Amino acid sequence: MFYIVVIALLMGNTLISTAQETRKPMMTPGGQPILTPQGTPVYESASNANVMYYSNITQRDSAYMHKTYGEVAKRILQHAMKDSASYKRLQYMCDTFGPRFSGTQNLERAIDWLLQTMKSDGHENVRGEEVKVPAWVRGEESCVMLSPRPYTLSMLGLGGSTATPKEGITAEVLVVKDFAELQRRSSEAKGKIVLFNAQFTSYRNTVRYRSEGAVRAAEVGAVASLVRSVASYSMRTPHTGGMRYQDSLKKIPHAAISTEDADIVARMTERGEKVTLRLTMNAQTLPDAVSRNVLAELKGSEKPDEIVVMGGHIDSWDVGTGALDDAGGCFATWKALQILKELGLRPRRTVRLALWTNEENGLRGGAKYAELHGAEKHVLAFESDGGIFAPKGFGFTGAADVFKAYKAAATLLQPIQATEVSVGGGGADISPLIAFGVPQMNIDVEGSKYFWFHHTHADTPDKIDPLDLNKCAAAIAVMIYIAADLP
Amino acid sequence: MFYIVVIALLMGNTLISTAQETRKPMMTPGGQPILTPQGTPVYESASNANVMYYSNITQRDSAYMHKTYGEVAKRILQHAMKDSASYKRLQYMCDTFGPRFSGTQNLERAIDWLLQTMKSDGHENVRGEEVKVPAWVRGEESCVMLSPRPYTLSMLGLGGSTATPKEGITAEVLVVKDFAELQRRSSEAKGKIVLFNAQFTSYRNTVRYRSEGAVRAAEVGAVASLVRSVASYSMRTPHTGGMRYQDSLKKIPHAAISTEDADIVARMTERGEKVTLRLTMNAQTLPDAVSRNVLAELKGSEKPDEIVVMGGHIDSWDVGTGALDDAGGCFATWKALQILKELGLRPRRTVRLALWTNEENGLRGGAKYAELHGAEKHVLAFESDGGIFAPKGFGFTGAADVFKAYKAAATLLQPIQATEVSVGGGGADISPLIAFGVPQMNIDVEGSKYFWFHHTHADTPDKIDPLDLNKCAAAIAVMIYIAADLP
Repeated sequence: MFYIVVIALLMGNTLISTAQETRKPMMTPGGQPILTPQGTPVYESASNANVMYYSNITQRDSAYMHKTYGEVAKRILQHAMKDSASYKRLQYMCDTFGPRFSGTQNLERAIDWLLQTMKSDGHENVRGEEVKVPAWVRGEESCVMLSPRPYTLSMLGLGGSTATPKEGITAEVLVVKDFAELQRRSSEAKGKIVLFNAQFTSYRNTVRYRSEGAVRAAEVGAVASLVRSVASYSMRTPHTGGMRYQDSLKKIPHAAISTEDADIVARMTERGEKVTLRLTMNAQTLPDAVSRNVLAELKGSEKPDEIVVMGGHIDSWDVGTGALDDAGGCFATWKALQILKELGLRPRRTVRLALWTNEENGLRGGAKYAELHGAEKHVLAFESDGGIFAPKGFGFTGAADVFKAYKAAATLLQPIQATEVSVGGGGADISPLIAFGVPQMNIDVEGSKYFWFHHTHADTPDKIDPLDLNKCAAAIAVMIYIAADLP
Repeated sequence: MFYIVVIALLMGNTLISTAQETRKPMMTPGGQPILTPQGTPVYESASNANVMYYSNITQRDSAYMHKTYGEVAKRILQHAMKDSASYKRLQYMCDTFGPRFSGTQNLERAIDWLLQTMKSDGHENVRGEEVKVPAWVRGEESCVMLSPRPYTLSMLGLGGSTATPKEGITAEVLVVKDFAELQRRSSEAKGKIVLFNAQFTSYRNTVRYRSEGAVRAAEVGAVASLVRSVASYSMRTPHTGGMRYQDSLKKIPHAAISTEDADIVARMTERGEKVTLRLTMNAQTLPDAVSRNVLAELKGSEKPDEIVVMGGHIDSWDVGTGALDDAGGCFATWKALQILKELGLRPRRTVRLALWTNEENGLRGGAKYAELHGAEKHVLAFESDGGIFAPKGFGFTGAADVFKAYKAAATLLQPIQATEVSVGGGGADISPLIAFGVPQMNIDVEGSKYFWFHHTHADTPDKIDPLDLNKCAAAIAVMIYIAADLP
C-alpha cells in the first residue's frame, strides 16, 4: 500500500454521480501524474459509459438483493468460515519466500508457486503476464550518532534513495517539525542532515515528509535527509517506503529512523546540544528486472467478455514478509475466487483475479494490466490493500445509482458486520483503469493498527487473524459475485 | 525487573499475619537461594519484631487516616501534578547516558549525574555506596537461517551467556514448546540448537525458559539454545534478560529471538522442513567493576534512626534506555522524596531514597545495601520496579494489622484511583532485607503493556506518560509519608 491512501483521498473528492469530468489529473505521492498506457493523464472522475451497466438498478433496494442473492450470500458466508487453508497458504508463502521485493528472486519464486498452486486448484486461465520492474537494492546501511554520545539509530533507507559515499555522510543534524519550519530555518540547513520530525496525524498528511523530504532538504543545501517513520505506533520500528527526487536538484540520501530515535535527536537539539550523525547507505539501482502479474479467472456464464477484476499486490517491501501489505489482499481475493468456484457459483460476467506486481515502488504491474486489458469491458475494478483486519464494508467510486446498488448488496453482509459502503474507493493497482472509466472499489477494514506494521520488519503473518481473512474473503466474494451477476 | 515477579510470587504465598517462619528459602529465578550478607538463606516470611511498630494501629480505619493525614495527602497530590520536571529529568538521563548496564561507563556517568543533581537539589545525606558488579559484554552477535532460506533473525543474547566459537555454531534446530516436550524428544537434541518456543502466559510461567533453557538444553546434548522472547506483544522485538548455568554441565550459548521469528522457525519444522541456523555471539565476562548505590535522605523529626527505605534500580539492560525498567521507579521515588522536601513535610522517621545498582544481572546492589544497612531499624522497604503506568495501589508483605493500616492509608489516594492494597508485595532489591524482618511493599500499576517493552530496544522514555509518573510519585509520597510518620 504505497499510493492507495493518496489515491483514496483524491478519489474521495470526486463526484459520485457526475457525468462530467473534473479534469484534475491524479498524482502519485511523488507528485508525478498517473498516466494511461497511451501516456495521457488519468483524471479523478471515474464516470464513463461503463458505469451505465448499473443504471437500471437504481430502484433496486435491499429487499431485491435479499430476494435475489440472499441464499447465495448465506452459502458464501458459511463456506468462507469452514477452514483456515488460505491463511495457512499465506503463512507458507511468507515463511518460504520471504519479502517479495521487485527485482528479487524471492518475488519470482512466490509468483511461480502462486501460478502452480492456482493451476493445481483448477482455476481457469491461470497465467503470468510479464512486467518490467525497477530493481533497487538496499545493501548495508546504518545511522550512527557520533555526538553527543555514541548511539546506533534504528533506521531503514527509503526505496529509491541514492547511496552515500562509502565512508558515509557525517554531519550535524537540523531538526524541523514540518516543511514550514525548514523554510523558516533554510539558512541553517546547508551542509547538514535535515531530520523531518513530523508527528503522525494521518498517513496522507505525514507521508509527504517521506515522499518529498529529500527534494525539500536538497533545495536548501542539506547533504542528506532523515524522516521520522510514518507510523502510528512504534517499538523502535523503522518504516521504509517510497520517495522521489527532482532532476534539477542534487539527489541526496534519504532514510527513515524510528520515532523513538527521532524523539531522542529532537530532544537533544532542543536542549541546545549539537547532534552529529553518520549516515551510511550503499543502496543501488540495478537495471529493470522482469516480474509478472498473476491472473486467474472464473468465466462468466452469459457475458464472459465483461469483467469484474479484483486483487491485491503480490510484491512487498524488502523487510518483514509483507503479510498485511499485501499478501492479505492477495489471499482474501484469491479465496473469494475459490469460494465461488467451490460452490459452483458462476456469475453472468467473468470474475478475474489479478495479483499485481511492483505496487510498492513503481506501480508498474497496475500500469501494465491497464495497458494490456484496459480496452476490455471492465464493469468493476476491486482492490484489497489496506491490510486484513475485521471487514467494515467497502469504498466505491462510480455512479450514484451503482453506489446505491452496492449499498443494498452490502446489507447481505450483516452477519459479519461489513455493511458500510462509503463514497470514494479505489486502490493503487486499479487506478490506471480510471482512465478507462472503470468504477473503483476497495474493501474497508478496521485498520487502526495498519500503520503500526506498514513497511516494517514486523509485517509478518501473525499480525493477521485467520478469522478476519475469512471474513474479508466472504465479504469480497459476496460483493464481487453480485457485481458480476447483476442483470 | 529481573527477579521481582518470582519474588512477588513467592511472597504472595507467605502468611501476612503469621509470626512463625515457613522456613522455605527464597530463590532467584536462576534457582540459587537468596542469601543474607552473612551467607544464611533468606526465608519467605517477613514476620519479625519490626512489624510490631504498627501493631497498635490495627483499630485505626480510614476515618483516622483521613483525619490525621487527609490534609497532607491533598497537598501531596496537588504538588505532584504541578509540573513534569521529573519526567524531563528522566528523559535527560536516558537520552544523555543511554542504557545503564552494570560494568559500563554509561551507568557510572548516570550515577555521577544523579548524585550531583540530588546534592544541588539540597537533599540530605546524598552519597554513593560502592558495590562490585559483574561486567558482561554482549559484543557482536547474530542468528542467521541458512536453510531452508537465508534469513536474519531478530535476536538478543541473554545476559551472562558464553560466546560461540568465532565462526559461530551452525546446527539444525529442534523446536519444543516446553520442558516436557524436550524430555520426550531428548534423543533428538544431541548436536542441535534447541528452540524453546513457549507461548507467553505470564512472566513467571514463561521466564523459566530464558532462565533455565541453557541448562535443560545442555542436559540433553544441545550445542546452543534459543528462547522465544518472553513478551506479551512483539513487533519483531527481541527481549534480553538473565539466565543461569549449572557448573556440572557444558555452558552453551543462549539467546532470545523475536516471537515472530520463533513462529517462523516453528512453522517450518512443523511442515517437515529442516531448519539450520548459525548462531554467532562473542559475549564475554570481564572482571567485576565498581558501581554504586545512590542514597539520599529526609531525616526523621522524632525517630531519625528508624528508616523507611524506598527506591528502584538505577541499572538497566544494555538495550533501549531502561526508561520503564527502571528509571521510572527511580524517578517516581525520587520525586516522592522531593515532594516531601518541597512541602516541608518531615515525618517522624527517616525516609531514605535508595537507587540500587545491578538489579538486572546480579542483584548486588540490593545485597550490598542489606549488608551495610540491614542491621538498621527499617520499618518498611518499598520498591517501584514494575514500570510506570497508571498507579492502581500497592502490594504489601508484613503483619496483618499493618496491612490494614496501609489499606486505610490508601483510601487517601481515591483522587488518583490508587486505592488497592493487595497481599504480597516486594521487589528484587529489597528482598535481601527480608532476612532482617523488614516488611516489603511495592507500587502496583496498570502494567498490561509492561512485557511489551521489558528488556528491549523499545524501553525508551516515550513509553511513560508524564502524568502517570506524577501519579505514581504522589501515591508513593503519601504512602511513604504515612509509613514513616505513624505514631
